[in-house]
Amino acid sequence: MVDALKLLALFLALVYLPSSDAFRYRKFRSPYNPKLRNALPSEFSYKTMYMTQNVDHFGFDNTQTYQQRYLVSNQFWNDDGGPIFFYTGNEGDIAWFCNNTGFMWDTAPEFKALLVFAEHRYYGESLPYGKDSYANNTMLNYLTAEQAMADFAELIKFIKQTVPGAAKSQVITMGGSYGGMLSAWMRLKYPNLVLGSLAASAPIWQFEGLAPCGSFYEVVQRTFQTGSQQCVDNIAYSWGAMTSLWPGDLQFLGETFKLCKPIEDKYALSDLLDWLVEVLGNIAMVDYPYPASFLEPLPAWPAKEFCKHLSEPLKDKALIAAVAEGVKMYFNYTGQASCINMSEEATGNLGDQGWGYQACTEMVMPMCSNNTNMFYNIDWDFSSYAATCKYEHGVMPRENWISLNYWGKDIKAASNIIFSNGLLDPWSGGGVLESLSPSLVAIQIPSGAHHLDLRGKNPGDPADVIAARQQEKNIMKNWLYGPGR
Amino acid sequence: MVDALKLLALFLALVYLPSSDAFRYRKFRSPYNPKLRNALPSEFSYKTMYMTQNVDHFGFDNTQTYQQRYLVSNQFWNDDGGPIFFYTGNEGDIAWFCNNTGFMWDTAPEFKALLVFAEHRYYGESLPYGKDSYANNTMLNYLTAEQAMADFAELIKFIKQTVPGAAKSQVITMGGSYGGMLSAWMRLKYPNLVLGSLAASAPIWQFEGLAPCGSFYEVVQRTFQTGSQQCVDNIAYSWGAMTSLWPGDLQFLGETFKLCKPIEDKYALSDLLDWLVEVLGNIAMVDYPYPASFLEPLPAWPAKEFCKHLSEPLKDKALIAAVAEGVKMYFNYTGQASCINMSEEATGNLGDQGWGYQACTEMVMPMCSNNTNMFYNIDWDFSSYAATCKYEHGVMPRENWISLNYWGKDIKAASNIIFSNGLLDPWSGGGVLESLSPSLVAIQIPSGAHHLDLRGKNPGDPADVIAARQQEKNIMKNWLYGPGR
Repeated sequence: MVDALKLLALFLALVYLPSSDAFRYRKFRSPYNPKLRNALPSEFSYKTMYMTQNVDHFGFDNTQTYQQRYLVSNQFWNDDGGPIFFYTGNEGDIAWFCNNTGFMWDTAPEFKALLVFAEHRYYGESLPYGKDSYANNTMLNYLTAEQAMADFAELIKFIKQTVPGAAKSQVITMGGSYGGMLSAWMRLKYPNLVLGSLAASAPIWQFEGLAPCGSFYEVVQRTFQTGSQQCVDNIAYSWGAMTSLWPGDLQFLGETFKLCKPIEDKYALSDLLDWLVEVLGNIAMVDYPYPASFLEPLPAWPAKEFCKHLSEPLKDKALIAAVAEGVKMYFNYTGQASCINMSEEATGNLGDQGWGYQACTEMVMPMCSNNTNMFYNIDWDFSSYAATCKYEHGVMPRENWISLNYWGKDIKAASNIIFSNGLLDPWSGGGVLESLSPSLVAIQIPSGAHHLDLRGKNPGDPADVIAARQQEKNIMKNWLYGPGR
Repeated sequence: MVDALKLLALFLALVYLPSSDAFRYRKFRSPYNPKLRNALPSEFSYKTMYMTQNVDHFGFDNTQTYQQRYLVSNQFWNDDGGPIFFYTGNEGDIAWFCNNTGFMWDTAPEFKALLVFAEHRYYGESLPYGKDSYANNTMLNYLTAEQAMADFAELIKFIKQTVPGAAKSQVITMGGSYGGMLSAWMRLKYPNLVLGSLAASAPIWQFEGLAPCGSFYEVVQRTFQTGSQQCVDNIAYSWGAMTSLWPGDLQFLGETFKLCKPIEDKYALSDLLDWLVEVLGNIAMVDYPYPASFLEPLPAWPAKEFCKHLSEPLKDKALIAAVAEGVKMYFNYTGQASCINMSEEATGNLGDQGWGYQACTEMVMPMCSNNTNMFYNIDWDFSSYAATCKYEHGVMPRENWISLNYWGKDIKAASNIIFSNGLLDPWSGGGVLESLSPSLVAIQIPSGAHHLDLRGKNPGDPADVIAARQQEKNIMKNWLYGPGR
């Protein structure tokens, strides 16, 4: 029965919805929400610093420079040999990552470490061309992982040269998600500067030919199964239920989801479905064991929470209303929103603008819903993806550059990298889940979502994340001090 | 007495000659001579191929492409598992390097290897903007080692994808001099593509802070000492002898050296001295044990040959005339030149134009004559160097980028690289002369000059280069087939 409805939904989607249009293709958006300014615990503090960086590290015709922001805390540092923990910033405001990476703060006293949080160019305040940085593709030309990593390399050198005591400090890079990829890649490309890397929830294999395109949604389904199989089945039905409201009954959707803008045509309906898929992915990403405000303010185990409304067989409008309850839980757990702005996540912040560009240039991450029942059919087709990129961003992505430049599956020449993954996290499917050598260590965290291990300690932490953090610290001690210390 | 004359020369040079001008500074020029088309032995043959490459691998605004040339020989290849020997092209026409790298041809049958010689962008036929490639710094912007290595990486992938049988072939990069640096750096940066690297006479440490600036000229002196100490002393005197002809007697120099253009002022005199320093460096570089035509057609052991005229104490014009005999030996061993064109080496070929740009951007190699008696005082001063670059090329060099990006002295995270150096070769001072780990192996060749080991076998080969080549083959077999094979 699920399959029959799924087939119907699929048929409707293929025939009526524009998802097969050449110029319209899903790409994963950056979920980070810079509006949430989780405060750092009051016992922690940092200084905001700036470094002059070349806009172009890979050419000599453009001689412009910009100010890269970085945050520094020497609160716990032993300037006579203490290491440097260096956060390789993601696609967003670095203060937000600084405040959401409690592991570094919790661990600094034990290691007597200097903390550095480096902002990624084109995000936060680190804008190569100020407010014009996103004006056109000439301005955006320097938004690449290679340029960002060259910034990080220059910054590490600069800190070692200018901070008294830092010259002899070993550097360990840390990061989560895209920042985790950068953290690992820094060890690959600059091991002269980086002793080791903690790459948390870093999907370095979520690229062409390295992992199946279906892994992301498979994990989303698995995470919602922790709610119930009925919940997953209900979500599977819901696509058909929503699609069948077209063309006559679309206003029901806007009202039920409390959307700020009504659903008025098939394009908006298709957008709604895409957006719901994304929301479900995000809920799985932040399926944390305690209430947290990472992407949105949420209760503990939000996937289970979402599923509470979907624990019985439902259909038609009752089913849609139950899904809508879950969505409202995600967006309005604190009850402050008068309506849900579906496009907000897509356009509300630089993080998303920048990631949109990066996803359309280097960061081509194939995604499909093969092997799930929970989702309607989402195919991966690079040429459609590329056409969408050309249309939306005026750029053509390079499908294989990341796997060529960052060694693809063949990273055994590297050393001293910890790849940690929470198994509830959809990105774990593109991560390194098995150790590749004694110094390329994979840590699986069964009850962890997206880089839970990087978050600050919490009374609600499950035993496996506590153990993972301990293992991470032991490995880092081994890098710094040798075995047995 | 030598010291007294050296002091005089130094005094004269500092006071009268323009070498301290802010806008004039020596930089080492590429010595390769593309006019010498040494033919490949007739039993060897290759095909000329072209691959479409992105002009810019590190940005997405410039979508232009160009045709990279590469030469392929499958004469000896076992397409069922034979390796690929991949020459990482230098600053020059790849056919010239192909014809001067007999080691690859001699070794291919034993390994059943596919030979690939990849041309470096902006040299030979691999011109991103055709004849306009050198028109201005916007056109030249893509002439960097990083871009060239990205070309090589894409080319390796392309060959493995398109040549039947190549997909499973292991790749060993090989190169000499700058090509040797690229060969080693390919293993550092792309070990997913490159199993190991033979880096012959690759001065990867001839960069700021990595080796003393004086090493180059120290080795030149040492190599001329194989002629005689008297020869070195005579050369040391000669700078003062030549300088003392200013202002009244400069025409003697042009006549004696058989220059195509007379020496008419102190600037031309200074140019002559600089040029002679360079010629002496080149003679040391090609101090091969048998007659060879690498930079110029030369007899066996050209440094000793040069010194034949300088084996007795000489002074004044007789000394200058004896030095001139040596110079004529270098430029006119075959007796065909009617006069010596001092500027020819500097401007006659793309190799030199391109290397001039590279030396003024990334390839900043500090050079000084400290700790030699043989040369007048040549200081290293980056700010003067940079000012010269700004004046001559309109670019500002980045002094430390190479050591940051290619790991400086701290390359122990790498593996599977052979660093071979001939100890007669002035560049050996910037090379890796001691093994750094069981898989970072240094091979010293006491009677070798600049990448002698890469040349084809010759009845005149000394035992040490024969042994070096054997050791290189043994190590490569170990990479390919494991220990003991």
